[in-house]
Amino acid sequence: MKITLGELAKATGGELEGDANYVVESGASLAEAGPKDVAFLENPKYAAQVSASKAGCVFLPKEAKGKLQGGPANRIWTHEPKWGFAYILQDIEARQNPKPAPGVSPKADVHPEARLGRDVSIGAFTVVEAGAMVGDGTVLGPQVYLGRNAKVGKECRIYPQVVIREDCVVGDRCIIHSGTVVGSDGYGYATDMKTGQHRKVPQVGNVVLENDVEIGSNVSIDRGNTGPTKIGAGTKIDNLVQLGHNVQTGRNCLIVSHVGIAGSTKLGNQVTLAGQVGIAGHLTIGDGAIVTAQTGVMTDLAPKAIVFGTPSRPHREAMKLQALFNRLPELFDTVKELSKSREGTHAG
Amino acid sequence: MKITLGELAKATGGELEGDANYVVESGASLAEAGPKDVAFLENPKYAAQVSASKAGCVFLPKEAKGKLQGGPANRIWTHEPKWGFAYILQDIEARQNPKPAPGVSPKADVHPEARLGRDVSIGAFTVVEAGAMVGDGTVLGPQVYLGRNAKVGKECRIYPQVVIREDCVVGDRCIIHSGTVVGSDGYGYATDMKTGQHRKVPQVGNVVLENDVEIGSNVSIDRGNTGPTKIGAGTKIDNLVQLGHNVQTGRNCLIVSHVGIAGSTKLGNQVTLAGQVGIAGHLTIGDGAIVTAQTGVMTDLAPKAIVFGTPSRPHREAMKLQALFNRLPELFDTVKELSKSREGTHAG
Amino acid sequence: MKITLGELAKATGGELEGDANYVVESGASLAEAGPKDVAFLENPKYAAQVSASKAGCVFLPKEAKGKLQGGPANRIWTHEPKWGFAYILQDIEARQNPKPAPGVSPKADVHPEARLGRDVSIGAFTVVEAGAMVGDGTVLGPQVYLGRNAKVGKECRIYPQVVIREDCVVGDRCIIHSGTVVGSDGYGYATDMKTGQHRKVPQVGNVVLENDVEIGSNVSIDRGNTGPTKIGAGTKIDNLVQLGHNVQTGRNCLIVSHVGIAGSTKLGNQVTLAGQVGIAGHLTIGDGAIVTAQTGVMTDLAPKAIVFGTPSRPHREAMKLQALFNRLPELFDTVKELSKSREGTHAG
Repeated sequence: MKITLGELAKATGGELEGDANYVVESGASLAEAGPKDVAFLENPKYAAQVSASKAGCVFLPKEAKGKLQGGPANRIWTHEPKWGFAYILQDIEARQNPKPAPGVSPKADVHPEARLGRDVSIGAFTVVEAGAMVGDGTVLGPQVYLGRNAKVGKECRIYPQVVIREDCVVGDRCIIHSGTVVGSDGYGYATDMKTGQHRKVPQVGNVVLENDVEIGSNVSIDRGNTGPTKIGAGTKIDNLVQLGHNVQTGRNCLIVSHVGIAGSTKLGNQVTLAGQVGIAGHLTIGDGAIVTAQTGVMTDLAPKAIVFGTPSRPHREAMKLQALFNRLPELFDTVKELSKSREGTHAG
Repeated sequence: MKITLGELAKATGGELEGDANYVVESGASLAEAGPKDVAFLENPKYAAQVSASKAGCVFLPKEAKGKLQGGPANRIWTHEPKWGFAYILQDIEARQNPKPAPGVSPKADVHPEARLGRDVSIGAFTVVEAGAMVGDGTVLGPQVYLGRNAKVGKECRIYPQVVIREDCVVGDRCIIHSGTVVGSDGYGYATDMKTGQHRKVPQVGNVVLENDVEIGSNVSIDRGNTGPTKIGAGTKIDNLVQLGHNVQTGRNCLIVSHVGIAGSTKLGNQVTLAGQVGIAGHLTIGDGAIVTAQTGVMTDLAPKAIVFGTPSRPHREAMKLQALFNRLPELFDTVKELSKSREGTHAG
Repeated sequence: MKITLGELAKATGGELEGDANYVVESGASLAEAGPKDVAFLENPKYAAQVSASKAGCVFLPKEAKGKLQGGPANRIWTHEPKWGFAYILQDIEARQNPKPAPGVSPKADVHPEARLGRDVSIGAFTVVEAGAMVGDGTVLGPQVYLGRNAKVGKECRIYPQVVIREDCVVGDRCIIHSGTVVGSDGYGYATDMKTGQHRKVPQVGNVVLENDVEIGSNVSIDRGNTGPTKIGAGTKIDNLVQLGHNVQTGRNCLIVSHVGIAGSTKLGNQVTLAGQVGIAGHLTIGDGAIVTAQTGVMTDLAPKAIVFGTPSRPHREAMKLQALFNRLPELFDTVKELSKSREGTHAG
């Protein structure tokens, strides 16, 4: 990609300060960008990296205008510097990881009763079972498994070694990364109290991913016990996440790596769960709630709640408690002194 | 499945209250069940869901008889409502996820020196190495890997994209979900203190799963350094669990998702480890111990211990400490006041 | 393997006490070793296991000479007992898990534009895309995926069902276990503040594993946003670990299972992260730092720091705080008494 800064500013809706005819070719981080690269600053906390950067141009947050010193002479001011930066990467991605040409690999195993849309691409050693459907323009990479009556929508990208079990439904424009399993059995047993044996409760629900969902690598999403496990439109799930049976998420949630959500819990819209968060079963997490890293949630959360700790507490309160926790040695000392002093008083 | 409530009560050993000729067809949760569905109540905590339910019939816990108001007129009282519910799902599962017909896919790669029992089913692109054995009636789904001299027992179901490495042993009636790896190398190195290099210690043990074990998706079970890593009969393991080399579990343990157990730790029988629990190496966890979610265990646990927190403490004690922790602000205030007051006294 | 203790002591640089002509054949743990086995003691904490052991010979730490009572008469004293023990396992491993003969399986799918070195072995149903390179003596097991222009060095062992995405680079003598994904997309989105939609930022970097890296099973290593995610030479990564985009590690780090490291964080050399540790993004962790299990790191760490807890604190301090935390009930009681006593005084 070769693009002038004038064109780039126009395409990304930004305001150019500098040379409109200057040509850039690629994107890089502030630290690693050279004169042919564009970089961006998202968090004003890292403003020092701008002044040291050798980027040909930097996308900067409009809000910071007038507050940034030094750095590259070419700047594009925008409300969304990261999105401006993303623009220039799209062309690189298209070259590096192109969408495979349509067609079914002769080395795939597609059941005659499967239904494939137009311009579908199916890779080598991929299995598509009876009754499965693949929408127009979708790519199933090599070594994918698509179970009986499972359905993948249009323009999806399913990377190598994904498993989508029977009856599961994937919406349009979804991306699923390698090693992910959609529709493994939920963890459900009825324990015989006399013998201690755990007898399997059949898991006959499915998983439904709505449109524009992206799932990272090595994620496990269990099928519902009865009814669906459902991931709302636009939700993005990071690697190694566990979603139990009948979990439901709203739209545009962000679920970061190693999060585990136990069965039947419901997330509202725009919920953010940071890394290694655990959420117990049968809870309701309100719209826009934010759960910070490693937190363990055992109760419902109100909309826009921000919580931290195990068990989780409101973030501000938890931070105050942490600060007091740090001061415990001092508190013990004070109390010891007070006790002594009292004994002194009493003795006196 | 169409079954009258009379037949259903009889089949599940329950006591019917209502219309013995009423016909039901399926199962669903209390909230989603309709007149043709059976639902169940396990935890009396959710009794309110019964009165609002539109299920055709509800399995209820015998212990709660006389304590539940309203809800569906047809009820089956039993000591095991969940197991009654499971009964009606079995037929649905058989239709939805039928056992594949016996036979070896012409697209599989089965070594001539592998030994297959009767009525075995082996899917496309599955590899069975030399010396491996597959027991009667077992299903290896598509894209499975079964290593040299590995052995899978009778009537097992191995889902697509499972890896079972060389010399590992799987008992009868085991279920292993997609993405799981049985027998990856244990994490063992001898560090050269001069250079800091970590030199690999060969991991020449194996993994033994006893009968009736179920393993979720994307689980990692490492082979022993020497000797086996062993999972006791009837133990059920959830998704994304890590079991280190030479871990041993007793019978009927429940190990929930994201649990990690370090090398050589031994669990007794009927141990429950909740989500995201970590257990250090070389420990002994007694029969029936319960470790609550996100807990970090660094010491042996007595039989029937119930623990919480990192480091783990007895549950009751840990809960009391959490309550006091919440009251730290108040405690600091009181001590501050006492200090002032003493100064006042002294000044006086 | 049959080897005399004289030969074994010589081969491992140890000092033999006992019968130089005694023959051993295998290795086992102290508890399970018999007269034909060698065992070892690494941690003097477990010295009691030595006196009870029936091993034919034990490798013992030179430092403990004169301090160990009883146990097997044949002993080899060395600074590195575990490494001595590893020696005898190498031959067993070679028999049990031999390197496959060179050759490309006729059931593999290798693109004509891929380049294979000498003595490469490629298993059934493995896919090697255009432009990919495989170095001399490397084994790609069955069902592996190697993406466009990806490069694997010499003498590597890539186990079944590993995915290495386009443009990623694996050094020499690396080992990657089953289910691991190298080069899935980093978790990068630009959120539209008006609609709440998360728009994908293309991830056009790659992953670089330097020489002698070992990666466990079901690990996810995301490709850089731009530029590489980099794992330093000799670093060993356990199962189910998550490394975000543009993470960098130094040489010889140990990263234990279920660790998650967020984007752009840099580890120095010889860093140890214990199980279930989480590290926030954009941090710097100094050489030789040790992060104990389940710790959550939210700030940079100095070289050789040892930390514990969430948020992480210096280990000694954290342990002191835990001890005081246990004494909170007593502290609350004391303060209550002091308060009463003061009221008494005031009343008086």
